[in-house]
Amino acid sequence: MHTISRRLVQKISVPIFRTSTHATKLISTQNQHRYEDKDPETKLFGKLLIGAASAGLLATYFDEKKKVDCKVAQTSGTFKDGLPEYTIEEVSKHNTQESRIWVTYKEGVYDITDFVPGHPGGDQILMAAGSSVEPFWVLYGIHENQHVYDILEKYRIGNLDKHDAQTFTQNMEDPYSSDPKRHPVLKPASVKPFNAEPPPSLLVENFITPKELFYVRNHLPVPNIDAEQYKLEIEIEGAKKTVSLSLDDLKKMPKKTITATIMCAGNRRSEMVKVKTVKGLNWGPAAVANATWTGVPLRDVLKNAGLDQFDDKYKHVQFEAEDVDATGKNYGASIPIWKAIDERGDVLLAYEMNGAPLPRDHGYPVRVIVPGVVGARNVKWLAKIVISEHESTSHWQQNDYKGFSPCTDWEDADFTKSPAIQELPVTSAICKPYDGDTIDVVDGKILIKGYAWSGGGQKIVRVDVSADGGKTWHVANVDAQDSSEPPRHWSWTLWSANIPVDNKSKTVGFADIMVKAVDSCYNTQPENFEHIWNIRGVLGNAYHKIKVNLKQ
Amino acid sequence: MHTISRRLVQKISVPIFRTSTHATKLISTQNQHRYEDKDPETKLFGKLLIGAASAGLLATYFDEKKKVDCKVAQTSGTFKDGLPEYTIEEVSKHNTQESRIWVTYKEGVYDITDFVPGHPGGDQILMAAGSSVEPFWVLYGIHENQHVYDILEKYRIGNLDKHDAQTFTQNMEDPYSSDPKRHPVLKPASVKPFNAEPPPSLLVENFITPKELFYVRNHLPVPNIDAEQYKLEIEIEGAKKTVSLSLDDLKKMPKKTITATIMCAGNRRSEMVKVKTVKGLNWGPAAVANATWTGVPLRDVLKNAGLDQFDDKYKHVQFEAEDVDATGKNYGASIPIWKAIDERGDVLLAYEMNGAPLPRDHGYPVRVIVPGVVGARNVKWLAKIVISEHESTSHWQQNDYKGFSPCTDWEDADFTKSPAIQELPVTSAICKPYDGDTIDVVDGKILIKGYAWSGGGQKIVRVDVSADGGKTWHVANVDAQDSSEPPRHWSWTLWSANIPVDNKSKTVGFADIMVKAVDSCYNTQPENFEHIWNIRGVLGNAYHKIKVNLKQ
Repeated sequence: MHTISRRLVQKISVPIFRTSTHATKLISTQNQHRYEDKDPETKLFGKLLIGAASAGLLATYFDEKKKVDCKVAQTSGTFKDGLPEYTIEEVSKHNTQESRIWVTYKEGVYDITDFVPGHPGGDQILMAAGSSVEPFWVLYGIHENQHVYDILEKYRIGNLDKHDAQTFTQNMEDPYSSDPKRHPVLKPASVKPFNAEPPPSLLVENFITPKELFYVRNHLPVPNIDAEQYKLEIEIEGAKKTVSLSLDDLKKMPKKTITATIMCAGNRRSEMVKVKTVKGLNWGPAAVANATWTGVPLRDVLKNAGLDQFDDKYKHVQFEAEDVDATGKNYGASIPIWKAIDERGDVLLAYEMNGAPLPRDHGYPVRVIVPGVVGARNVKWLAKIVISEHESTSHWQQNDYKGFSPCTDWEDADFTKSPAIQELPVTSAICKPYDGDTIDVVDGKILIKGYAWSGGGQKIVRVDVSADGGKTWHVANVDAQDSSEPPRHWSWTLWSANIPVDNKSKTVGFADIMVKAVDSCYNTQPENFEHIWNIRGVLGNAYHKIKVNLKQ
Repeated sequence: MHTISRRLVQKISVPIFRTSTHATKLISTQNQHRYEDKDPETKLFGKLLIGAASAGLLATYFDEKKKVDCKVAQTSGTFKDGLPEYTIEEVSKHNTQESRIWVTYKEGVYDITDFVPGHPGGDQILMAAGSSVEPFWVLYGIHENQHVYDILEKYRIGNLDKHDAQTFTQNMEDPYSSDPKRHPVLKPASVKPFNAEPPPSLLVENFITPKELFYVRNHLPVPNIDAEQYKLEIEIEGAKKTVSLSLDDLKKMPKKTITATIMCAGNRRSEMVKVKTVKGLNWGPAAVANATWTGVPLRDVLKNAGLDQFDDKYKHVQFEAEDVDATGKNYGASIPIWKAIDERGDVLLAYEMNGAPLPRDHGYPVRVIVPGVVGARNVKWLAKIVISEHESTSHWQQNDYKGFSPCTDWEDADFTKSPAIQELPVTSAICKPYDGDTIDVVDGKILIKGYAWSGGGQKIVRVDVSADGGKTWHVANVDAQDSSEPPRHWSWTLWSANIPVDNKSKTVGFADIMVKAVDSCYNTQPENFEHIWNIRGVLGNAYHKIKVNLKQ
């Protein structure tokens, strides 16, 4: 069915979605286009894409301050009278700086040469040079945004030859078409890939978050895995021995349940961007949740497989997932080996969430739970485990999820110098009321609710709340906290505070509320986002501050 | 030689310094008065004293803002013409609120009834009721201060009968008389007990701190222990089996050396007191140092002694020391059992510091090194280890070394609700230049040096320095850091930064320098002391800020 020229096939031959090289079988491969990946140019483009594969990285300044709505009226890519027509063949010749960079979008032809330097996703845009941007926009749905359409249309130079346009667009496949249905209460920060959080006020209603309310952080389309066919591969790098385990094999082992909070490194990014623009999804304070996880301790799996005896040179445990990016690279991450083999590390290969099989969005059939550690290492749809001398080489381990100084910009960010985020620092947030709400003053007091959590198994030992911008503080009540001791305290703490407000003067009528938590290492939160600002907008754990109107 | 009446002996029969009940022998007992301790009243007073035994607690508002100088001219306690004379017998009758509280100091008699509620050390002052304050002032040298003399003299009501005065004062013994000689470079925050730190600028000259420069934090007189006679007792609470080990027994076991920083919980208190008065020694930023420690892993000692198999109910390892307070209570502290038995916890029973036997001030012959954990748990002069269901009941574990909210004052501080400090939070300090210094600007830049450290085995991953009050930041260079990975990174990081200053305008001529560190959990420091202020002035880890004058 590929009616476009061979040359163009080569040009767009970056595989959108291909079958994993792992033993595991993906069953949702219907209608997938599997292009041959032998063109050296394509491989170069593939490499370029590695740096772009995070949807977070592509969540640019275009849409930082508002949630993406894919249903906005689209005015880009429609046929425009009075513009010249170009064939695909002609467009394909404009694929270098010298020949100018042309791309197509539906029926539109665009010369984006002058936009390339300003593309928030960097050079990766060159993958579409001389061809259509659509496969990439389909994969990184963040582009499907009125603001992006408007920018693109500024570079319009013509219309695509009508016959070519029809052929071309018919071949566009949506790799997200088999994503699961989500509960409408989840508010998307991006739809493709799906990233969404619940309203914060709902979050603090339950110590254990119902699965429908648990934030979703997907980097790529959700793989559709047949549990019957599921195989987990385990290997020691450089050794010949590998082990392959089915889901049943895992379920036959003694199971363990832990309660653990998972948090996205970008949680509360929407507060940090107020200081200065960052690259990343515009998360509110609800990219965090708490659940029970049932599965097999990773250390037992390794031991059982005879893989617990290995050389001291091995320092990391790498996880590879079933979800694949546009270059065919699997999502991956790693953790230090001590965390994996320590009984008190409590790392699980989990197959249940809140007592039921994992939902597809949360890693069905098997995910890693690395309690106390950033969500990105809690790899979903686990396919392979590698015991290695090195960290995962994946984009998400090497070139994402790292912290930088406020003085570091993209130009001088050296990702090799900054450690991959593992344990997360102490944080807290007010979930009720919201910033700008008008709330009742009852007996001179207002009721505030929220959560606090710290990574590394540290317990929250105190939450301080102020209603006068930090002049006076009140110790919040602990509403829910589990009894495990640090450094194996994995769950969040839900708190509330009924604090007095000075509302005698009717002209005031508002309160500056802020919260900060202290963990069992007595670490506490930084006061402002200003001095912890970083290019990726991660680790946003400053005091949470809101302003509310008071009603007597 | 006790010529004072039996009744009075009972009254002052709180032992100042008594032989340990442990197997270990103290040899510096010459001229010590050992009073019998059978009077129920004395026991009550003993209990009261438990709460006062920390010299830190008695380092009151009297002398918070200046170093104690014991050589100030003393005008208190001298005979004053025209006042009535009282015998010891008469004074001793005034030992209750009803009969009024009288005390003596040298030749002076004082009615301190109205001062008791305001005594910063609390009710403990009642131990001296109807008797002399001198034994307590000798033990807690912090009282030997002109400001305290002046306050006392306000309550003067008479002179002590001349004969009684002579007899009484001759029996005052200085339990600190056998303390070791210290290097004069150590700047005392208190002399009895000895607490001192070196000039910060010297501290950052060496990654390994020479023993003479290592800060000294003593709560009580330094015991003088004969290593030949040394015995370490180990028991499981409630079990009959105990083990006794000599120093030779310990030395015969496989030894291990670790490099670890120890920090006092009160380090940098002198910055916190600028917000509001606290109780505690006025430490600068040099109550921290780094050394190599050689000894036997605690877990090996327990295992070797057959004490590694015990019920899960045991949660703590208590340490008792040879130094004793005025009630005969030994200094003590405890750590959670996981830290003690974890190989990666690296807890040592150390007998060497920097390759030589421990100096007396640092715990000779054996101390505990609990890396990553507050100095107070690194118990010196170790006498006994108890595996227990409970934390140490010592004053220093229960009623000291705990954090509180800025809103908590002494009246509402509930020590049972706040966890004992163990792992310390991330901190950093500028050691060179000092606040107020005038420094050279070379090629538009100034050179700043300091340290950074985090407890819990976390490594410093970045130090940010600003010379314009936080408007712009610069990443400091790491000058010295060991290669161990978190969470077993126990040493500090020494850093320097050569940062540009805007000194074009000659009218400016100064720089607001500040530093903050980030650890491997990406925890960072709070910005200001204001919101971390606490009654005991501990955990002072806000940004270190200094102002310097610039010289072109």
